[in-house]
Amino acid sequence: MDSYLIQVNGHGNHAPILDVHLKTNGNSISLGKVKGRKGRWAVRASEMSKKTFNPVRAIVDSMKVEPNPKKAMISLSLGDPTVFGNLPTNDEVTRAVKEVLDSGHYNGYAPSVGYLSCREAVAAYYNCPEAPLEAQDIILTSGCSQAIELALAVLAKPGQNILVPRPGFSLYKTLALSMGIEVKLYNLLPEKAWEIDLKHLESLVDEKTACLIVNNPSNPCGSVFSKSHLQKILAVASRQCVPILADEIYGDMVFADCKYEPIATLSTNVPILSCGGLAKRWLVPGWRMGWILIHDRRDIFGNEIRDGLLRLSQRILGPCTIVQGALERILHRTPPEFYHNTLSILKSNADLCYAALSAIPGLQPVRPTGAMYLMVEIEMEHFPEFENDVEFTERLISEQSVFCLPATCFEYPNFFRVVITVPEEMILEACSRIQEFCETHYQGAEGAQDLECDK
Amino acid sequence: MDSYLIQVNGHGNHAPILDVHLKTNGNSISLGKVKGRKGRWAVRASEMSKKTFNPVRAIVDSMKVEPNPKKAMISLSLGDPTVFGNLPTNDEVTRAVKEVLDSGHYNGYAPSVGYLSCREAVAAYYNCPEAPLEAQDIILTSGCSQAIELALAVLAKPGQNILVPRPGFSLYKTLALSMGIEVKLYNLLPEKAWEIDLKHLESLVDEKTACLIVNNPSNPCGSVFSKSHLQKILAVASRQCVPILADEIYGDMVFADCKYEPIATLSTNVPILSCGGLAKRWLVPGWRMGWILIHDRRDIFGNEIRDGLLRLSQRILGPCTIVQGALERILHRTPPEFYHNTLSILKSNADLCYAALSAIPGLQPVRPTGAMYLMVEIEMEHFPEFENDVEFTERLISEQSVFCLPATCFEYPNFFRVVITVPEEMILEACSRIQEFCETHYQGAEGAQDLECDK
Ligand SMILES: Cc1ncc(COP(=O)(O)O)c(C=O)c1O
Ligand SMILES: Cc1ncc(COP(=O)(O)O)c(C=O)c1O
Repeated sequence: MDSYLIQVNGHGNHAPILDVHLKTNGNSISLGKVKGRKGRWAVRASEMSKKTFNPVRAIVDSMKVEPNPKKAMISLSLGDPTVFGNLPTNDEVTRAVKEVLDSGHYNGYAPSVGYLSCREAVAAYYNCPEAPLEAQDIILTSGCSQAIELALAVLAKPGQNILVPRPGFSLYKTLALSMGIEVKLYNLLPEKAWEIDLKHLESLVDEKTACLIVNNPSNPCGSVFSKSHLQKILAVASRQCVPILADEIYGDMVFADCKYEPIATLSTNVPILSCGGLAKRWLVPGWRMGWILIHDRRDIFGNEIRDGLLRLSQRILGPCTIVQGALERILHRTPPEFYHNTLSILKSNADLCYAALSAIPGLQPVRPTGAMYLMVEIEMEHFPEFENDVEFTERLISEQSVFCLPATCFEYPNFFRVVITVPEEMILEACSRIQEFCETHYQGAEGAQDLECDK
Repeated sequence: MDSYLIQVNGHGNHAPILDVHLKTNGNSISLGKVKGRKGRWAVRASEMSKKTFNPVRAIVDSMKVEPNPKKAMISLSLGDPTVFGNLPTNDEVTRAVKEVLDSGHYNGYAPSVGYLSCREAVAAYYNCPEAPLEAQDIILTSGCSQAIELALAVLAKPGQNILVPRPGFSLYKTLALSMGIEVKLYNLLPEKAWEIDLKHLESLVDEKTACLIVNNPSNPCGSVFSKSHLQKILAVASRQCVPILADEIYGDMVFADCKYEPIATLSTNVPILSCGGLAKRWLVPGWRMGWILIHDRRDIFGNEIRDGLLRLSQRILGPCTIVQGALERILHRTPPEFYHNTLSILKSNADLCYAALSAIPGLQPVRPTGAMYLMVEIEMEHFPEFENDVEFTERLISEQSVFCLPATCFEYPNFFRVVITVPEEMILEACSRIQEFCETHYQGAEGAQDLECDK
C-alpha cells in the first residue's frame, strides 16, 4: 500500500497547498505542490438540507411527551388512517397489485411520468366535461407529497412567493422554504366553516406571487368549500393571474350532506395543477402513489410547465411500477360501498367527537364536513395555567395519555387537531379524558379573574 | 356569480395597480386600489426545472431514429434488464411482496427514512466486520436515483463542486447542475480497464470540492475496480479530506473471475455514503427501492449529515411500503442460484459480444467484468463519413435498425455503449448487423488517406 507524507502549507481562506511525497516500497517520489482541499476533515450539511425543516417534527420532538403510566396512550395525532386497523383498504385494491405481480409485466422502468396506460386510467377517472383530461395531462408521482414538490418546483423560483392557507398542511412551507421560495399565509375563518378570508388572500398577492395553494377538503380543518366559495377563489386567481396548486388529496372524502367540487371543474381559464393520490381515499398512504392533473384549457402553462414537470420527474423516475400497474383496476374495481363505508365511519366519528367536545367547558370544536380531522379551539383565557396550545396538549399527554397535535404545527395557535380515523371506542374514551382534563384545569370567569388579581 | 371590471394602471417592473370594482347583483362596490400581480397571465417554468436537464434525453431526442423498415429494431440502449423477459426476477422476490400485501400490515405511512425493521434487514445484509452497519446507518429511498439525490443534496451546496467520472452515468451531472453544484469530470482510462486517472482526479480537488462520486461496478463501462485501485482512490479522498458518494447499484454484479469490494470495507476513516438498491441485482428497477448506507466510523459526517438526510427524506416520505416490507424476505430468501444465473447470462453475453465486436475492423470493444454494459471505441479515422459517435449510431439505426447509445451521452465521444442484458440471439444478430454496417463504411489506411488527399 502507498503511504504519504503530507505537509500542509496553506491557511484560512486560501486553497491549502499540499506538498506530497509519495512513498512506494521505499522509493520516494515527490509529486510537487498539489492544490489541495484542506488538511482536515470538515463535512458540513448543506443549507438546503438545513432549510428542509418540518415544523411538526420540531414541535412534537420538543414536547415533553411522557404519558401517564396509569392510562394507555391514545394517539389522535397521525394523519394515517391505517394505524388502528379499523379502516383497512379494499380487497380489490390489494388484489389488483397481486395480479400485477403475477403478470410480471410491471417490474421494469416506466417512463418517469408514469406508464401511458396508467396515466390514461387516471385521466379517464377524473375526466369530466367541465374539466377534460387526457393521459398527457397526468403526471404520476411518489405520493401527493412529491406531486406538491414537483408542482412548486416548476411554478416558483427562489425569491418568488406562494400563498398558503393558515391553518394549513405544513409540507407547503417546508418545501417552499427549502427551495428559497417565500411563504405568505392567508387566513381561513373558523367562524365561516374555515372559508378563505378572500380580502386577506387578495391583499397578499404581489408581482412575485408564483401560485396560490388551495387545499380542499382541508387538513387540518376537515372543511369542504362550497361551489360558490370556490368560484370566488377562482375569481381572485383569475383577476390576479395567479395559477392554482390545488391539493385535493382528500377529494371526494366529504360527508353525505355536502358536495365535493374539484376546483378545476369551476374554471375555464385559471391554470391549475391538481395534486392527489391513493393515500387517503383508498387508505394506502404507504404505497406512495400520487399524481398531478394538469388543467390548462387556455394554454397558459403551455409546454413550458409541462416540459418542466417532465424534466423534474426524471430526477427520481416516478412511483413504484407495481402500484402504477394496479391503478386502472383500483380505480375501476373498488366497490362504491367501500368509499361509502369509510365516509360513514368518518362522519359518525366526527359527529360523536364534535358532540362530546362541544359539551366541554373551554373548548370550541368546529364541525368538520370532510377529510379526516376536526379542529378544536382552546379558550385559553379559561386555562390560565397553560401558556399556549403546545403546553395544553403536552399536559394532556402527561395527565391523560391523549395525544392531539397542537395547531401551532399548522401556524394556528390555541387550537388543537383531532384525527377522527381512530375506532369509535377510542374517540369516546379520548373525549371523556379530554373532558376530565378540561374540568380539572378550567377556570370560570371568576376564577380567571382571581388569577389575574393575584398577579 | 360575481363579475369584475378590471383596469390596469401599472406598467413594466412596478406592481400593477388594479382598480377593482366588484359588481354583485347589480350593486357595484369599489374595492379601491388593490396592489396586483399583473394584468395578464405569464406563468414561466422555474430555472431549476430548466436546469434539470438529462443529456441522454436531449441527445437521443435529437437523433434521427428512423429504423430501416426492412429490419426489426434491436435496441441495445436501455439499462433496463427486464425489457426482453429473458431476465425475470426470482419468484421469491414476487412472493415476498404478495405476503406483505396479504398481511395488510404495510399499507400505512412508514417513517420517512423507512421502517426500522426494514432498515435493520438491509444493515444486516451489508454488515461486515470491516464496515459495520446498524439500522440507524440505513436510509431507504425511492430508488438509487433518490439515494444519489439525497446524498448530493446533503453533501454539496450551490457553488461547491463534485468530482464525477468520465465516462459516467448522466444523473450525477443532471442533479448537480439543477442544484447549482459545479461538476468536475475526472477521466477513466479505457486502456487500464477504465481505472481512474488518479493524478487527474487529484488535480481537480480544490477547497470547494464537496464530494467524490465513485461508481463501481460502472455504468457505462462494465468495469470493476480491483481492491488495490480502490485503496488508491481512498488514499486520494483521505489525503484531500473529500467524502465519497459511492454509487454501488451494481454491487456484487461481477463476473466469476473478478471480485467486488464495497469501497467502505477498505477504509477506516473516509466517510462514505454508499447508494444502492434492488433495481439491478434483483431485476426490479420499476419498484423504486433504493438505500443509502452511511459509513462514518470516524464520526466525520456526524449528526449533521445524518440529520440532514433525515430532513431531506421527509420531503416525499420514503419508498413504497409494500416493497419495504418485503425487503427482509427478498434479501434472505432469494436463492444464490438466481444471482449466479443472472451473472452467467451476463458473462456469456459479454463474451459473445466482446468476441464478435473485436473481430470488426474499426471497432475496439473494452472487455467488461461486471454490471450490464460494454463500451466500444469507434476508430473514427476509419469512418470518415461520420462526424462523431452520435452520427455513427444514428446511421446504425437507419441502416441496420440497431440502437446503441452514443457515449457522448456519458461525456465520452467516439465510443458507444452496448447493453448486454438482451437475449443471446439478439446480441448475435445485432453484432452481425454492426459488422455489416462497419464493413460498408470502413475506410482502410489507404482509403482514409485517399479521402484526406481529396481535401
Ligand atoms: C393536505 C395534505 N396534502 C398532502 C398530503 C401528502 O399525501 P401523500 O401521503 O400522498 O404524500 C397529506 C398527508 O397527510 C395531506 O394531509
Ligand atoms: C450507475 C447507476 N446509478 C444509479 C442508477 C439508478 O438506479 P435506480 O433505478 O435504482 O434509481 C442507475 C440506473 O441505471 C445506474 O446505472
